[in-house]
Amino acid sequence: MKPFIHEDFLLQSDAARQLYHEHAAKQPIIDYHCHLNPAYIADNHRFDNLGQIWLEGDHYKWRAMRTNGVDEKYCTGKDTSDWEKFEKWAETVPYTMRNPLYHWTHLELKSAFGVEKLLTPTTAREIYDQCTEKLRTPEYSARGLMKMFNVKVVCTTDDPVDSLEHHLSLKEEGFGIKVLPTWRPDKAMAVENAKEYRAYLEKLSEVSSVTISKFGDLIEALRIRHDFFASVGCKLSDHGIEEFYAEEYTEKEIETIFDKVYGGNELTGAEIRKFKSAMLHEGALMDWEKGWTQQFHYGAIRNNNTRLFNKLGPDTGFDSIGDFTVAKAMSRFFDKLDTDNKLAKTIIYNLNPRDNDMIATMIGNFQDGSVAGKIQFGSGWWFLDQKTGMEAQMNSLSNLGLLSRFVGMLTDSRSFLSYPRHEYFRRILCNLIGDDLEKGLLPASEMAFLGEMVENISYQNANKFFNF
Amino acid sequence: MKPFIHEDFLLQSDAARQLYHEHAAKQPIIDYHCHLNPAYIADNHRFDNLGQIWLEGDHYKWRAMRTNGVDEKYCTGKDTSDWEKFEKWAETVPYTMRNPLYHWTHLELKSAFGVEKLLTPTTAREIYDQCTEKLRTPEYSARGLMKMFNVKVVCTTDDPVDSLEHHLSLKEEGFGIKVLPTWRPDKAMAVENAKEYRAYLEKLSEVSSVTISKFGDLIEALRIRHDFFASVGCKLSDHGIEEFYAEEYTEKEIETIFDKVYGGNELTGAEIRKFKSAMLHEGALMDWEKGWTQQFHYGAIRNNNTRLFNKLGPDTGFDSIGDFTVAKAMSRFFDKLDTDNKLAKTIIYNLNPRDNDMIATMIGNFQDGSVAGKIQFGSGWWFLDQKTGMEAQMNSLSNLGLLSRFVGMLTDSRSFLSYPRHEYFRRILCNLIGDDLEKGLLPASEMAFLGEMVENISYQNANKFFNF
Amino acid sequence: MKPFIHEDFLLQSDAARQLYHEHAAKQPIIDYHCHLNPAYIADNHRFDNLGQIWLEGDHYKWRAMRTNGVDEKYCTGKDTSDWEKFEKWAETVPYTMRNPLYHWTHLELKSAFGVEKLLTPTTAREIYDQCTEKLRTPEYSARGLMKMFNVKVVCTTDDPVDSLEHHLSLKEEGFGIKVLPTWRPDKAMAVENAKEYRAYLEKLSEVSSVTISKFGDLIEALRIRHDFFASVGCKLSDHGIEEFYAEEYTEKEIETIFDKVYGGNELTGAEIRKFKSAMLHEGALMDWEKGWTQQFHYGAIRNNNTRLFNKLGPDTGFDSIGDFTVAKAMSRFFDKLDTDNKLAKTIIYNLNPRDNDMIATMIGNFQDGSVAGKIQFGSGWWFLDQKTGMEAQMNSLSNLGLLSRFVGMLTDSRSFLSYPRHEYFRRILCNLIGDDLEKGLLPASEMAFLGEMVENISYQNANKFFNF
Repeated sequence: MKPFIHEDFLLQSDAARQLYHEHAAKQPIIDYHCHLNPAYIADNHRFDNLGQIWLEGDHYKWRAMRTNGVDEKYCTGKDTSDWEKFEKWAETVPYTMRNPLYHWTHLELKSAFGVEKLLTPTTAREIYDQCTEKLRTPEYSARGLMKMFNVKVVCTTDDPVDSLEHHLSLKEEGFGIKVLPTWRPDKAMAVENAKEYRAYLEKLSEVSSVTISKFGDLIEALRIRHDFFASVGCKLSDHGIEEFYAEEYTEKEIETIFDKVYGGNELTGAEIRKFKSAMLHEGALMDWEKGWTQQFHYGAIRNNNTRLFNKLGPDTGFDSIGDFTVAKAMSRFFDKLDTDNKLAKTIIYNLNPRDNDMIATMIGNFQDGSVAGKIQFGSGWWFLDQKTGMEAQMNSLSNLGLLSRFVGMLTDSRSFLSYPRHEYFRRILCNLIGDDLEKGLLPASEMAFLGEMVENISYQNANKFFNF
Repeated sequence: MKPFIHEDFLLQSDAARQLYHEHAAKQPIIDYHCHLNPAYIADNHRFDNLGQIWLEGDHYKWRAMRTNGVDEKYCTGKDTSDWEKFEKWAETVPYTMRNPLYHWTHLELKSAFGVEKLLTPTTAREIYDQCTEKLRTPEYSARGLMKMFNVKVVCTTDDPVDSLEHHLSLKEEGFGIKVLPTWRPDKAMAVENAKEYRAYLEKLSEVSSVTISKFGDLIEALRIRHDFFASVGCKLSDHGIEEFYAEEYTEKEIETIFDKVYGGNELTGAEIRKFKSAMLHEGALMDWEKGWTQQFHYGAIRNNNTRLFNKLGPDTGFDSIGDFTVAKAMSRFFDKLDTDNKLAKTIIYNLNPRDNDMIATMIGNFQDGSVAGKIQFGSGWWFLDQKTGMEAQMNSLSNLGLLSRFVGMLTDSRSFLSYPRHEYFRRILCNLIGDDLEKGLLPASEMAFLGEMVENISYQNANKFFNF
Repeated sequence: MKPFIHEDFLLQSDAARQLYHEHAAKQPIIDYHCHLNPAYIADNHRFDNLGQIWLEGDHYKWRAMRTNGVDEKYCTGKDTSDWEKFEKWAETVPYTMRNPLYHWTHLELKSAFGVEKLLTPTTAREIYDQCTEKLRTPEYSARGLMKMFNVKVVCTTDDPVDSLEHHLSLKEEGFGIKVLPTWRPDKAMAVENAKEYRAYLEKLSEVSSVTISKFGDLIEALRIRHDFFASVGCKLSDHGIEEFYAEEYTEKEIETIFDKVYGGNELTGAEIRKFKSAMLHEGALMDWEKGWTQQFHYGAIRNNNTRLFNKLGPDTGFDSIGDFTVAKAMSRFFDKLDTDNKLAKTIIYNLNPRDNDMIATMIGNFQDGSVAGKIQFGSGWWFLDQKTGMEAQMNSLSNLGLLSRFVGMLTDSRSFLSYPRHEYFRRILCNLIGDDLEKGLLPASEMAFLGEMVENISYQNANKFFNF
């Protein structure tokens, strides 16, 4: 019996196997959106054990454990050892069959550690020890893992007030893999809480050396930081938003709203929407001026569980998919920028797959022939970063746009063990195309073109698109 | 040529066949949500003929007949004989190919009556006579059919004012199959019509012996009935709602709204939403106190056809799928309960499959490790109770939660001939897993675990979850 | 190696091949909804070259070219030659693999011109010349192409003010293929722009000989034109609407709104909705009186790109899929008509596939047994007119209604080369049914019935339904 994860995992046809092994597998990785800690790269961090690298901060696994009836202390407990947590995770793993966690787990074990056994309560100790031993060798340091997976570029996610010290030191040092920052100004528009917002403005004032007391000051300060990010090699911005904001507003209105929140007063819902509309627009102009690519991750509803949010904070597994109505606002937002011919290259990531076809047609409204695939439909995000989700995104993009111009996969991950997700994506991509070939939906004579297309989606498209 | 419904119907792979025949098929049935008439069980009802048992009240079949150009008199006509109706149904059956009715019809003929012929105008008389003859034997009485299909537990759907006399007599009598009531207080919150609501309150007052003139009285009366339902073995509540209601309200406001409607005045839309928010919350607290499981069937728009509603009343085939925006309200509703640590075990059933992924992630927000699969995504409901719908629900649940912890199928049916839908569900489940195995998406080495998983989803999970 | 488009293209099973070749392929074409220019038929138009017939006005191709990084001048440029445009299109074609354009392109080349080579930059010149030569022969005139594809009836799309001169001359002449008008009164309810609306009213006044100064006059004028359309053989109306409008209104209110817009004043959003509600209802009554079929194409958001709209006008590739909430309004709209027993035969086309199941159940609310399939779920429209979209529509219709009663395909096209889309549809239909047969989901014994069903969906159902 073949091991579960074998060389033809996910590849159901001869064409798929050929496309994967001869084209996709050979490409390096550009991970143009992730949440890696740049300090870990700068310090070339070593991980204590498999429990730590796998379970610390991994809310996907925590959600599965809670659903499986595992007590919270084994997820986030401070007095629980890494091994105890791992043991509970190992108990849960068989119950995740058909969930992407089951694939990711064994793909990571195989690709990073060469482990072919399935993780179960029986094999848990052996696997834990074997991987932990490897993790303590230099090949499994943060940088070691990046090299192991043939990574060329990584874009982290950073706040405008961030010093980017680790990016700078890596640049100076001349580390072979590009580690670039991404401009993520979510906090600069988080006016829901006047007090926290004021505190943020003070930090921003400090790092930008701009005294901020008016809206214009805020934009000036952000622009200074935007320039600084650019000087460190930043090529992308990113926005985590519930909905697209494209309300009508006047400069005067925005100034008044700013004064109000700056003065410590809470804003109304309408004011918040106007303010965010202005902020998104101003940020988009900066991105356009620099030739960056702007990313929008929209549609999550976050922190649904107040009780556990109060205990554990954000990003602990209590977020889910929203059902917002967004098409008209999205259209207005991009149209306003395009009207002035100032629409930057863009990637839209949606969280509710029911909107896939809407997004895949929305991007077509703003393709203007200036850059191939100028407006992109982002790869399956978060909950959709699995076989069904990725296939649905690629099928919608194929049916309603050009798959051939897709910039492809990113991990969006906090973990140095997540690079096999690129492999996962590429296998799924090759399988889709291979299946079409087998059914005669694509011409068998065009294997050379399709091989190149797979290489482009795996690596070349992103490399050209982002100008790294 | 094999008969249409043969032993491997729906099972496309060896693994699927093995999982079904060796594991799923052997499990008894727990039908934890249905609309059977308990009097029929208590009286051990006999059915006159196949036309009656199949067509009386079956709005699925009526819809198909109307679409096929059949006159209303053959659906609901009072002066039309059972045979005449059946004849028109038989004419319609071939036109239902690709509709679940075509499968259900022949599955019921095969499983209950051993009939392998297809129902067509040509075979109609023969099949009618053959089945009618059997229906007149004791094996085909209400209880006979329940035994034939190896049913262990049935939960009916009952109003708080119901006497539960039949449940009580069955309990006293010691009928081997558990027949338990379900608490369905829809009418207790139906404040849209002041006059009808007042009449309902009077009935409730009578059965609870509580004089109801204030909101507090209503809650007291309901609690008395809730206790009574518990004493008869009730373990589940159920709610048929368009949307989730989770408005902010004060006790005072709710009292005022109650006074208004109690006084015979119609409420505004906003008042209705507030009142329903309070009622749903109060009911949820009672369910939590008892350790029951609460069910929410949301998202239908009912009685769309006024002309035929006026003639035929509700539940006659004029309901359909709504497109409500519900995620934020649903989140607030469950969060409020969870904040007080009073969130009961829950099953959410949606009617619009475009919301499957939203629901499958929503449940993850409130899994707290106390019970495996505490918050459940309910099996394909009503219009979604077919192969595509069930597969979509199970695929979303698999991708975004744990299929292994799913409590599985229920008939939601008014008919004693609907138990083969459990068989239908199990075949579809086994086929999904078998297909994954065949494609290497699940490890072939884990057949034992998967066999057990299939048994759990077919029977054991529900048995443990509901504490019958 | 077989050519890409071969006789069994899209047909994956023996049953599919049998159904297609023995049943579907032999049926004539009824194209009951298209945007052909009737003048081209009356004049028996000849096309200069392949670039012209393919690229003039084809916004599908323009979108693909823009996405592929092709400059606007090669899409819509006035100083660019047909060959230059075609050359850029040929460069783009390989990049459309997995997009329906790749299939349509090669299907049209094969079916109309016998070309089996793939269109690439290398083959572009040869294919252009070869097809252009053919286009200059009588067989490839407008009428020649219609005969080549065995077309029996074509319904164009026409404004109430249209003279229908070409339809009339074709009728008089006795052209063998029926060319009928369709009543499309969009402009008669386009009250968003008071000035343009007034200008339209003047045209309508002129052609109807009714002085229009009140709402009643408008209806009278429309009725006169409606009668005129009927006299020319019109059997269908059509409406392009964002949403369904079913607001409550009084006659008095509508009169006042009309007076306001007639007087040159802009209306509020609420007034526009009320007015459209009235207009849709009044039009629906006329359709019912005549026994016509009313069509609703809803859910697009149009002209998203203001910059290019100002340059190029509407229908140039800047429209996309909306995410409107429509179920309740749709229900009210049809219910109001049905309440008076004045609901005409109806086809609903949605643009967002997330609404497929909602629509497929909505139609069931108003099936009344008077006509088989009285309320139809329209075939995949616009962006959904591709394999995935058509399969999704047919699967929803099958699961929730009766596929057997479906009136099937229409091109919705401006091009005389689009008839192969009927072939495309029929192959997909046969493949769906064949796949079910192969999996035992349909009984193999029923090939005769299924063959007839395929013939019905391809031709007979439409022929009977519309009373041509």
